Amino acid sequence: PDLQAAEAVRARDGRLTKPPGALGRLEEIVEWLAAWQGRAAPAIERPLVAVFAANHGVVAQGVSAFPASVTQQMVANFLTGGAAINQICESYGVGLKVYELALERPTADFTESPAMDEREAAATFAYGMEAIQGDIDLLAPGEMGIGNTTSAAAIYAALYGGPASRWTGRGTGVDDAGLSRKNAAIDAALALHARDLADPLEILRRLGGREIAAMMGAIAAARLNRIPVVLDGYVACAAAALLHAIAPESIAHCIAGHVSAEGAHRDVLTRLGKRPLLDLDMRLGEGSGAALAIGLIKAALACHSDMATFDSAGVSEKSE
Amino acid sequence: PDLQAAEAVRARDGRLTKPPGALGRLEEIVEWLAAWQGRAAPAIERPLVAVFAANHGVVAQGVSAFPASVTQQMVANFLTGGAAINQICESYGVGLKVYELALERPTADFTESPAMDEREAAATFAYGMEAIQGDIDLLAPGEMGIGNTTSAAAIYAALYGGPASRWTGRGTGVDDAGLSRKNAAIDAALALHARDLADPLEILRRLGGREIAAMMGAIAAARLNRIPVVLDGYVACAAAALLHAIAPESIAHCIAGHVSAEGAHRDVLTRLGKRPLLDLDMRLGEGSGAALAIGLIKAALACHSDMATFDSAGVSEKSE
Repeated sequence: PDLQAAEAVRARDGRLTKPPGALGRLEEIVEWLAAWQGRAAPAIERPLVAVFAANHGVVAQGVSAFPASVTQQMVANFLTGGAAINQICESYGVGLKVYELALERPTADFTESPAMDEREAAATFAYGMEAIQGDIDLLAPGEMGIGNTTSAAAIYAALYGGPASRWTGRGTGVDDAGLSRKNAAIDAALALHARDLADPLEILRRLGGREIAAMMGAIAAARLNRIPVVLDGYVACAAAALLHAIAPESIAHCIAGHVSAEGAHRDVLTRLGKRPLLDLDMRLGEGSGAALAIGLIKAALACHSDMATFDSAGVSEKSE
Repeated sequence: PDLQAAEAVRARDGRLTKPPGALGRLEEIVEWLAAWQGRAAPAIERPLVAVFAANHGVVAQGVSAFPASVTQQMVANFLTGGAAINQICESYGVGLKVYELALERPTADFTESPAMDEREAAATFAYGMEAIQGDIDLLAPGEMGIGNTTSAAAIYAALYGGPASRWTGRGTGVDDAGLSRKNAAIDAALALHARDLADPLEILRRLGGREIAAMMGAIAAARLNRIPVVLDGYVACAAAALLHAIAPESIAHCIAGHVSAEGAHRDVLTRLGKRPLLDLDMRLGEGSGAALAIGLIKAALACHSDMATFDSAGVSEKSE
């Protein structure tokens, strides 16, 4: 992080026509932008939500309320502008790109074998790194993938300790029987892969999905290219949690856009050391919570950039 | 409230391409808009932040970190576009009007006498009712007035029980000595007016300020004209709390835009039965928290209005 840029933001903040600190987290947001963009006057001209879509073999275990075909159908919906993420991006002037990750070929069912082989996990991570192209200045990785809350819960259980039920939620809305199947599938996978879960990259390969690998790549590439990242919810944070387990500093450029109503996302954010900007009971994925947060972040930056100073506006300062 | 309109929104929500309930409070927001605008297809075409500015005699007791002249200076700053509220309204396409309430003639120091006489309190309430003009469809009353967190704290202490220190905060940033003077001024006023604090309108007249009277009028007029209201923070909610004390239903059309870092605002919102949309450690006033919430509310409405349905997008529904 560029500490000088953050300090310059703090200095300007003290001259703006408001009591010191009165904009609360809006001030913290601008310091974060400055530190990670590496400039005293941060800008958001090309913010991007990058949605990665993937299919999951574990769906065969009956873990989701929706059929796997919905992943492809929702990709079509993104492309014709009909999903929630389209409306939120449109509301705030945020770009949206959708990446399909071999939807016709789901990952392997991780209750039976690793979800991906090593080459595939690495290639998908590398593919995700491409999301930062196009001179973007703020990135929110999002996802779509029927079954992927099962994968995310398995990753959390592997990273932080089981059983599955401590990490799972109802995802898109499974009933009690479906939730039992989801927990059973994860617990079976934790047992099957037990000897290979010490390495976060092995956790990714064995229990993850392609969208999670790609989001890891996107977050890592942003870190290397001075692009601040807004984290979305329960599934997107599985990518952040894996990076964090490898090296905590690798997600220092990330802010938590929101806390999801799903499963143990609040606990995950605490473990990642991230305080969410929004808490609106959302559990949709698609990058939707992060995109809403970008709306806030843009307003925070507008305040910092365009407010008058005490001097320029002729406003009297605090009396001592 | 128009329960049929809210029900129509719920019905459409169930057809949109997302799991039921997955947009969380965004769905609740649209039901609220529909119920109080009285239409199944609510709209936000002319949202307005109405900022009321007033001066307070109690400033003579040394309760604020800023001189009283700042109220007028900040009004000038609003009019030239230099304040935080200007940037937030600009970010989200929200209108802004500023109402000066006889700034050259502060209310009386309520440690010595009632702040306003009956005619003045009533006239200012009526003046505030004018804020709903211009076919607005969403209203956020805001305020500017050096000394007005002292007035708001006095109102909360009178409504909910003292001592002052239970309700006060540092406002624009008073030091320990200033905070002691603030508490002492309020406790003195509570003693002076003790026999006349059973009637909320008497509390307004004796301990309030003109901006608080005007915001009460604005909120009440909105209630009568099918205009939903977004509440701002610590001072704006004093107006809501007085109306609530008169008749709880009189603020049923209000949603809490945010919870302030100031004093006991969180406790006040609990008493009003309002769960805030945002919690960002802000304590600026000007309607700034409510205006940020309007940005969210517009995105929530865009999701509801413009998302595809399962049928129109050809997305498979939840399997039972």
